[in-house]
Amino acid sequence: MAKEPIGIPRGTRDFGPGQMLLRNRVFKVVRETFEQFGFAPLETPAMENLSVLTGKYGDEGEQLIYKVLNSGDFLSQVKPEDVSGGYKSLTRKVSEKALRYDLTVPLARYVVMNRNVLTFPFRRYQMQPVWRADRPSFGRYREFYQCDADVVGTKSLICEVEIMQMICKVLHQLDVPDFVIKINHRKILAGLAAFCGAPGREAEMSVSLDKLDKVEWEVVAAELSRKQFEDTFIETLAGLRTEPLRVDASEYQDLTLRLSANEAAAEGFSELNQIFALLTGFPEVRSRIRFDLNLARGLSYYTGPIFEVVPQGVRVGSISGGGRYDELTSVFGIEGIPGVGFSFGIDRICDLLQELGKTGDGAETPSQLLLVQFDAESVPFYLQTLARLRQAGICCELYPEAVKMKKQFSYADSKRIPFVLLAGEEEIRQEKFTIKTLGTGEQKLVSFDELVETLRQI
Amino acid sequence: MAKEPIGIPRGTRDFGPGQMLLRNRVFKVVRETFEQFGFAPLETPAMENLSVLTGKYGDEGEQLIYKVLNSGDFLSQVKPEDVSGGYKSLTRKVSEKALRYDLTVPLARYVVMNRNVLTFPFRRYQMQPVWRADRPSFGRYREFYQCDADVVGTKSLICEVEIMQMICKVLHQLDVPDFVIKINHRKILAGLAAFCGAPGREAEMSVSLDKLDKVEWEVVAAELSRKQFEDTFIETLAGLRTEPLRVDASEYQDLTLRLSANEAAAEGFSELNQIFALLTGFPEVRSRIRFDLNLARGLSYYTGPIFEVVPQGVRVGSISGGGRYDELTSVFGIEGIPGVGFSFGIDRICDLLQELGKTGDGAETPSQLLLVQFDAESVPFYLQTLARLRQAGICCELYPEAVKMKKQFSYADSKRIPFVLLAGEEEIRQEKFTIKTLGTGEQKLVSFDELVETLRQI
Repeated sequence: MAKEPIGIPRGTRDFGPGQMLLRNRVFKVVRETFEQFGFAPLETPAMENLSVLTGKYGDEGEQLIYKVLNSGDFLSQVKPEDVSGGYKSLTRKVSEKALRYDLTVPLARYVVMNRNVLTFPFRRYQMQPVWRADRPSFGRYREFYQCDADVVGTKSLICEVEIMQMICKVLHQLDVPDFVIKINHRKILAGLAAFCGAPGREAEMSVSLDKLDKVEWEVVAAELSRKQFEDTFIETLAGLRTEPLRVDASEYQDLTLRLSANEAAAEGFSELNQIFALLTGFPEVRSRIRFDLNLARGLSYYTGPIFEVVPQGVRVGSISGGGRYDELTSVFGIEGIPGVGFSFGIDRICDLLQELGKTGDGAETPSQLLLVQFDAESVPFYLQTLARLRQAGICCELYPEAVKMKKQFSYADSKRIPFVLLAGEEEIRQEKFTIKTLGTGEQKLVSFDELVETLRQI
Repeated sequence: MAKEPIGIPRGTRDFGPGQMLLRNRVFKVVRETFEQFGFAPLETPAMENLSVLTGKYGDEGEQLIYKVLNSGDFLSQVKPEDVSGGYKSLTRKVSEKALRYDLTVPLARYVVMNRNVLTFPFRRYQMQPVWRADRPSFGRYREFYQCDADVVGTKSLICEVEIMQMICKVLHQLDVPDFVIKINHRKILAGLAAFCGAPGREAEMSVSLDKLDKVEWEVVAAELSRKQFEDTFIETLAGLRTEPLRVDASEYQDLTLRLSANEAAAEGFSELNQIFALLTGFPEVRSRIRFDLNLARGLSYYTGPIFEVVPQGVRVGSISGGGRYDELTSVFGIEGIPGVGFSFGIDRICDLLQELGKTGDGAETPSQLLLVQFDAESVPFYLQTLARLRQAGICCELYPEAVKMKKQFSYADSKRIPFVLLAGEEEIRQEKFTIKTLGTGEQKLVSFDELVETLRQI
């Protein structure tokens, strides 16, 4: 067959063994932590009916949904003149399925479909890829994983407390030393808009405020001005700006007092303070929290506390975020199901570990040991040795051909297999093995039990 | 927003917590076994360039590939008159990406793209969903997982031996009591066709033979006749038919002798016998193997040993299969890369565990324990208790609201959480807990350490 040019779609990635071993470590920590907190796994199909996704992500989001062409004769309902109507109207005729854009709409869809059999509160986690036809750039991909955990069906703020604990537990296990959890409350943003003189306009205000982690205040002020916010509004807002605050800082108390004249803001602060109080017993979590009046989070469905996790001293941006919503399923016509959820950005976390140099030993294989093949006659003995090592939980392999030692060592070297095991005639007779540490070149003669001991120590 | 009818695409599935806990257990066993054997993880994008997938799966397969509509104005290259040309010619103009159909072509594509940096032999495993626009039916889905492991870049039959070992290790861990590994060799099929009088026609013969696990011999014979195989061919073939044979059965020796006059068949038997010899030290594996002259496996790229795993005494069909190929990457113009691979059908294995009643305790959550919330004042104490339990590796949760006990118990009951923990005023003062086993109703007063001990025992 003719040679074709090959590649992968722009904005997507292959994850080779080195990257996958890191990613699987992150997935494992996240999964185990979610499960320790009683979250149960859910998986939904990659393809959803287009009608389920339509109207959920705004006009801009809608453009980024990947549509799947109907199978078979997708033109069966299309007439030549339909082409002149433009691609948007034609989409519905040639495509009825689309790739999932996030994990929240599929969750809402699942909850609605199963609401009569599910027991609430429903604590679910979901770790699956999503697809967005976004312009690819540094850190922005067209296929990426989301790792969501939500508690659906309760207004209890204990859920927020547990989410903060999970975030800290995961990042602690991944050895991320320095990060803060920024927190705010949608009702405080409502109060803020009212306090500054534009009650009800918190959504518009928030969209602008949200940009403050990328642009200067002046840019945001100009945007607010273009949106017809009064100068006095912008001045008052500017006067309230602070760095993200520790929750025991006096500035936080001052801000609470100033804004709490507004009823919504007072409610918001009261809820945040309940969360902070419950975290008193967890200083390692509480000390990470910063109240950030500028934190807005784009998604409009949040109605309560909102938060975002930002690693410090690195270029990587927010690696996790979430918040409370009053209505998960109202887009599907079912009212009164509140909840709270958040998401880990696995791709960002892997970027962060890379930047922190915490990606492990760069191994390209799970194998801890390569058994050298001296001659084909000893293969039965080699296979027995491998079986015993694997029984002891050790990942290991035999070089599949009796080629030159040099080639076998260079194989181990390029895959970063830490140990090479030699069992020649002499060793086999003595029931001993020579184990060689590739990094140091050190080698010693050991019994099988000593071998297992050595491998377990690392 | 108006209520819409909602559902998921036909042939796809949501996996709720109960199913996911089972699936994750299977995935974990497979992953850990693959890694113990030194296979390294690989993940490729869900979407491949359409040109990468085209021409790889035959006409029938090609029809089953899901194409993704180009994002933005997918009609930009389409004129109204193009619609009259039919959907096949239009596909290339509106779609340049498609969902992966299997994991083998993506592996071949990855190997070709990375052949200058990869160290061979390359031992990789891959566990990801694939999509096929097939007609959905019992056990046949449009989205399903494949779990592949391949060794690329060696002709060593040790790989086949290790694959047999992995199959047995996984099924043993999943407590599948009764299964056989059917084995045959493409060269024996070539020899068989020649022996019966139609040299070179083994591919056509195999397609018909492949149906023998679903239809009677007469149906296959009629099909062969329609394909212009001579009556003497069909008679000779019929005379060689046997049940799948133990490899130490005298019938197997007889068959070897009869067919080995043909050079290709002799080579095939020689390779199989090398595999059987290497398995002598592993009777628990070797005793599962059955030589099956009728095993053909559809995929045409196999050139060496082929095998399939069939559970016994159940309705579920083959749960794993694979074989050796001489040319993985020649479809992309790169010659001389041989290998061997196989795949676990995770969905089939889960169906099998269901049929065997080995799906675990039916829990809908990983939580082993629900802590009852008596009153909001004790929440700080509850949170500390949970943190200590989780630190000890126990999955647990607090009911998030201080509602009636009955409601909390019924929550635990419907999620099949095995234990409920009570810590009232009296218990908190005594630093004790009341643990209740939901199944038996048994309850006892324990210290924290005794609590952990109890939970760890299950």
